[in-house]
Amino acid sequence: MAHLNSNYLKLKAGYLFPEIGRRVKAFSDANPDGAARLIRCGIGDVTEPLPDAVRTAMHKAVDEMGARESFHGYGPEQGYEFLRETIATNDYRAHGLEVAADEIFVSDGSKCDCGNILDIFGHDNRIAVMDPVYPVYVDTNVMAGHTGECNDNGLFDGLIYLPCTAGNGFVPAVPEAKADIIYLCYPNNPTGATATRAQLTAWVEYALANQAVILFDAAYEAYIRDPGIPHSIYEIPGARRCAIEFRSFSKNGGFTGVRCAFTVVPKELACRTSSGESRPLHPLWNRRFSTKFNGVSYITQRAAEALYSPEGRAEVAALIAHYMGNAAILRKAAEECGLSVFGGTNAPYIWVRGLRQLTSWQIFDKVLHEANVVITPGSGFGPAGEGYFRISAFNSRENSQEAARRLATLAWK
Amino acid sequence: MAHLNSNYLKLKAGYLFPEIGRRVKAFSDANPDGAARLIRCGIGDVTEPLPDAVRTAMHKAVDEMGARESFHGYGPEQGYEFLRETIATNDYRAHGLEVAADEIFVSDGSKCDCGNILDIFGHDNRIAVMDPVYPVYVDTNVMAGHTGECNDNGLFDGLIYLPCTAGNGFVPAVPEAKADIIYLCYPNNPTGATATRAQLTAWVEYALANQAVILFDAAYEAYIRDPGIPHSIYEIPGARRCAIEFRSFSKNGGFTGVRCAFTVVPKELACRTSSGESRPLHPLWNRRFSTKFNGVSYITQRAAEALYSPEGRAEVAALIAHYMGNAAILRKAAEECGLSVFGGTNAPYIWVRGLRQLTSWQIFDKVLHEANVVITPGSGFGPAGEGYFRISAFNSRENSQEAARRLATLAWK
Repeated sequence: MAHLNSNYLKLKAGYLFPEIGRRVKAFSDANPDGAARLIRCGIGDVTEPLPDAVRTAMHKAVDEMGARESFHGYGPEQGYEFLRETIATNDYRAHGLEVAADEIFVSDGSKCDCGNILDIFGHDNRIAVMDPVYPVYVDTNVMAGHTGECNDNGLFDGLIYLPCTAGNGFVPAVPEAKADIIYLCYPNNPTGATATRAQLTAWVEYALANQAVILFDAAYEAYIRDPGIPHSIYEIPGARRCAIEFRSFSKNGGFTGVRCAFTVVPKELACRTSSGESRPLHPLWNRRFSTKFNGVSYITQRAAEALYSPEGRAEVAALIAHYMGNAAILRKAAEECGLSVFGGTNAPYIWVRGLRQLTSWQIFDKVLHEANVVITPGSGFGPAGEGYFRISAFNSRENSQEAARRLATLAWK
Repeated sequence: MAHLNSNYLKLKAGYLFPEIGRRVKAFSDANPDGAARLIRCGIGDVTEPLPDAVRTAMHKAVDEMGARESFHGYGPEQGYEFLRETIATNDYRAHGLEVAADEIFVSDGSKCDCGNILDIFGHDNRIAVMDPVYPVYVDTNVMAGHTGECNDNGLFDGLIYLPCTAGNGFVPAVPEAKADIIYLCYPNNPTGATATRAQLTAWVEYALANQAVILFDAAYEAYIRDPGIPHSIYEIPGARRCAIEFRSFSKNGGFTGVRCAFTVVPKELACRTSSGESRPLHPLWNRRFSTKFNGVSYITQRAAEALYSPEGRAEVAALIAHYMGNAAILRKAAEECGLSVFGGTNAPYIWVRGLRQLTSWQIFDKVLHEANVVITPGSGFGPAGEGYFRISAFNSRENSQEAARRLATLAWK
């Protein structure tokens, strides 16, 4: 008699964005006029065209696939050398950081990587996450059986939650508790907060002292404007011995519909076996790639490579400038509503505190019904997000301006 | 102190194909002349150009990504409706089989799906695999902790192995033992064997009687020539209550470097929870897709859709005819060497019994060094494959003819 994975039954009603989708659909079905004016500032999905340099590279790669001499079948599961080398050179070595091409694993998305990374860890690690948090970190641990049940506050027993509040600037300090695996995301989704060099140094020192592993999600590093803020965890001395970094082409190159990302696993990073020996993680992640993955499309890898060309870089810079221009407009609008506003200066997300004790979902429904704007309820990211909402700057300029105007018309007080 | 997944340490020296790659590289480095004449009939990787219909669709989709109005960001994690519906209609309903579009989950590869499917099952199931077997089925179970150690025969304790021998035509009967999850692959990789309707019916009846789940890998169904052989497990009454089917565009459309596949999870298929209740698997697999995956590239999904157009179908038929033409040439060559030859008539693989008591790896080395042809050692697929080797028909006609000529020159007896 086959058994299913009963851990899945602990999960809450649905992953956040499908739930938003359901509410928007219900609204749209009941309000065709409102549906027609709908502006989506909810899910962090890019809206601008794929860079010309990328499309040119993809056309060329598609043509290559049309001749036997230049056809590409299975590639190396970990990614083509041309892309791994390009990433190592441009994202790391050019900034004085030591990352080798074979420490880079090219994948079809950071969401996949953040979930799949758990495969190479044991089931007995104590897991720390921020609250609010990108739901994938929590849900994948629930699915893997690393938690107990969800309690009435929406927190899962067995996880160490690090509350992010206005009081700590949404950057929690290292905890008293001894965590074995810590998820850090800076610039942060959903709060838009960034961590200073000193704050990240404290985490690296904590991880080294506790023989813990930091899972550092740097998906939004391209949005950092302040030159003092680290882009990579490897800017911190010692991080190669305690941190895995996730990066994505989704938000810089506009690849949400193209699918390419990568993970860095330094060769010095080691963990304990069940019998207590120290062993490197790199061979395990490499083995996982060989066994459970078949590499990213050749055409997509050529697309990602094109982001590093002079033309590609210029187009990425323009995309970032565009979205950060939206962020400035939306930030200003929320401030002018008299709300407390965070983020949006080194990240494409604005994190806003509602008024009148409304819950996040009440604010979501209000903004949806009264302004026909889709935002993301803060509580969807964890109980510490209750009362907050996230505005995404991923939009056309026109839509951002119109969303800003509409937010100003709502009765917030 | 973070722990790694110690189950990985049980895995044998390397996944089969990387090991072949290492031996071929060592040979090539030492023998530049031999390297220049190398013909690869090892890994089952397609060689012929991507169909014109596919490339046309990809060019169009790339262009769509260049305009805001037709840009596609995140799609539904489970696949676009246009592709799910096309698959359900053409691969199932057109053949009188009941499969709904929302039972189809579009992924980036069957290797991923076959590994990831374990996520939704408990850890206490008894797993049955064939021997020889596609290594991914075994290795992913080892990694998930579903086995003990590997014994001296290369078998993992805790798995139920079903030997495939010349005696049973490489199609083992249902076992006495009660398995909970059974991997079946027909047409088979590596043996090229196919299962009759009666044989598959016995498996479905076994699964229903034992409340077991069949994981049916139909990656090679397009190679079936004999009209009596089932292409889908759902041709067998009752299979919707006990079987998941994996299909791929790798081997029919030549997508090994493009990456697209799908899994069918029927809504009737249920398993037991840890407390003994019966619950459907469909919501779990759906939840896994939502949480750990972000969908396949829009461009790739348009490429897969194009395989179902009249032009695409004609091109797929020509590709299959090409590879099966190679299979006939290679089969004949092996027969003329006086070897016992199996498969290759409804599958792109020819399964050959060596002579002189050579081990599979000895044959591999002999054929590599003396004929400069890469084959796959049968023992790499499991101990029952010892003494056998697999010849892949995925090649140009020229290379297949030349490989056939060279095989004929070797001293086999």
